[in-house]
Amino acid sequence: MPDMENLTAVRLDEENGELLILDQTLLPNEIKILRFRKTGEIREAIRSLRVRGAPAIGIAAGFGAYLAVRHSPAADCRGILRDFLLAKDALASARPTAVNLFHALDRMEKRLRSVLDTSPAEARAALLAEASAIRDEDEAMCRAIGEKGLPLLAPGMGVLTHCNAGRLAASRYGTALAPIYVGMERGIRFKVFADETRPLLQGARLTAFELMAAGADITLLCDNMAAAVMRRGWIQAVLVGCDRVAANGDVANKIGTSGLAVLARHYGIPFYVLGPTSTIDMDCPSGEDIVIEERNASEVTDLWYAKPMAPRGVGVFNPAFDVTAHDLVTAIVTQHGVAHQPFGPALAAMAAAPAGEG
Amino acid sequence: MPDMENLTAVRLDEENGELLILDQTLLPNEIKILRFRKTGEIREAIRSLRVRGAPAIGIAAGFGAYLAVRHSPAADCRGILRDFLLAKDALASARPTAVNLFHALDRMEKRLRSVLDTSPAEARAALLAEASAIRDEDEAMCRAIGEKGLPLLAPGMGVLTHCNAGRLAASRYGTALAPIYVGMERGIRFKVFADETRPLLQGARLTAFELMAAGADITLLCDNMAAAVMRRGWIQAVLVGCDRVAANGDVANKIGTSGLAVLARHYGIPFYVLGPTSTIDMDCPSGEDIVIEERNASEVTDLWYAKPMAPRGVGVFNPAFDVTAHDLVTAIVTQHGVAHQPFGPALAAMAAAPAGEG
Repeated sequence: MPDMENLTAVRLDEENGELLILDQTLLPNEIKILRFRKTGEIREAIRSLRVRGAPAIGIAAGFGAYLAVRHSPAADCRGILRDFLLAKDALASARPTAVNLFHALDRMEKRLRSVLDTSPAEARAALLAEASAIRDEDEAMCRAIGEKGLPLLAPGMGVLTHCNAGRLAASRYGTALAPIYVGMERGIRFKVFADETRPLLQGARLTAFELMAAGADITLLCDNMAAAVMRRGWIQAVLVGCDRVAANGDVANKIGTSGLAVLARHYGIPFYVLGPTSTIDMDCPSGEDIVIEERNASEVTDLWYAKPMAPRGVGVFNPAFDVTAHDLVTAIVTQHGVAHQPFGPALAAMAAAPAGEG
Repeated sequence: MPDMENLTAVRLDEENGELLILDQTLLPNEIKILRFRKTGEIREAIRSLRVRGAPAIGIAAGFGAYLAVRHSPAADCRGILRDFLLAKDALASARPTAVNLFHALDRMEKRLRSVLDTSPAEARAALLAEASAIRDEDEAMCRAIGEKGLPLLAPGMGVLTHCNAGRLAASRYGTALAPIYVGMERGIRFKVFADETRPLLQGARLTAFELMAAGADITLLCDNMAAAVMRRGWIQAVLVGCDRVAANGDVANKIGTSGLAVLARHYGIPFYVLGPTSTIDMDCPSGEDIVIEERNASEVTDLWYAKPMAPRGVGVFNPAFDVTAHDLVTAIVTQHGVAHQPFGPALAAMAAAPAGEG
């Protein structure tokens, strides 16, 4: 099994001035660490999903913008700013809908503008500090989500998760998987079940991979087997991440999440949503207001396969996400704590709190 | 689009003394009709799933046993019987758990024994008649299931199905798909949604293929998208087949069926199970008594894929079937009619009726 340090989505090699990205498109078959110095290469790695997961993308963008400045030949801070803005512009267009990417870059720019009257060396140091802070805060936030979520689980429980909201999507602990990793640090173990998560198979390729590498007890399932394991009494909690939480507690997450929530309700199993407060969107009243991205049919009919596995030209419905109604959610766990129903006031308070680790 | 006649699982070419089997392992990428004369070849085609679906396997076994006798050089009926029994023995071991296979072969043997005091020519004619009757009765039974099921649906409804219980699994109409095909004959059309049905993808490879070829309005989904389409209000009925129905109405069917039943209940959608009365097992009191076959992990981790899509050695749970509790089933449709809850008495009456088309 691989060294866990190598299973980090994004790292900075400050000595060599390189960004280290674990190529997630090759997982689980190959562990290849890519090394980048140039903004264009980092942009391409984000665009082509070699690094994915909103927090990990934000970290990659922060370090990427820093490296543009570190390698800039500019002799004054105006030159540094010029090179930074070129890099920011390139990186921001890598994934047009990834809000963490913009947040990270805006934060880097703000820091740089605050030190424009100093030297290029000081500006570089400030950007390194800011990019490192983005990563450190993400790790602390993930850890806090794990700390808040762990008391919801009893040792030895069967826990089902969907898609990948683990260390490959964020730093070290992940979000939905954070209670599992924090528990393991304390010798508390769970029986984890991972849905393979069609069509992109993040559960099989990423979640099963990182949990197996970490020494967790992990069993892979096809998505349509979740009801059968619940009926057998093997699952005591469902843990999922979230892409966006509406003000009323409706949750947008990877396609298949809402079906799991219905099954969990039927079988009397708690359904927990875990994520940072940055995913709570108080401007979005309910799930009805969330637009669901539909993706290419070829993800369903061709991707991963040696041959097409559906008739040419068949109609395909391929929504990337779904909305889980808030009444199916037992609790929403953020770095600030655990919100129960009714979610409205609790989410408003969490969203208003500072974004730190709680 | 292919000629529908070519999309028949099993046909007899009596003139040439050949069994025509549509190679379902190549679908949807290639329509290849295999021609067999020898028992060993037919056995191998059944064993390797080139023909699958309990009714289709029964029909193949019937014609296969007939062909052994048609090509037998025996000059008397004792010689005919000897060659028949050799063929029966070979065919019966092709799929050890396929009950339709044994039923068909037993029926052929009984017919042969009833004409042993006649000539080889008459024995051959009797076996041809019996094998043809097995096929004709299956087609009539499927059609009757369609007739009984059609009134449960309104024109234009959104209908969700799982796995393949269509013409590729049986003769012409299938079981779960029979109301759709009978409706189409009368100009009644539905919007059909097919789960791809991991791990073996029968929904994508077979159901989407045969419905598209028949000109139906068909949309392919990943299994985990069923809840999302139900939540959108696109589904007004779920139609599934059955491998075995217990005396209390619990239903064993392809993995993923029970999850669909829970989702249908949550969204207030009728959940219909369709199959011949031969699948009702009055000796099996409830689903608790049905042993669920678990299959190879490689079906989940490797099959169909150009590369492994899960980490080597990961634990996998791969049950081939699941049990849907009878209280989640709206109605069970057989060739004899529609059984509603409580299922016990209605199923007992149906199971006791002659197996004909009702």
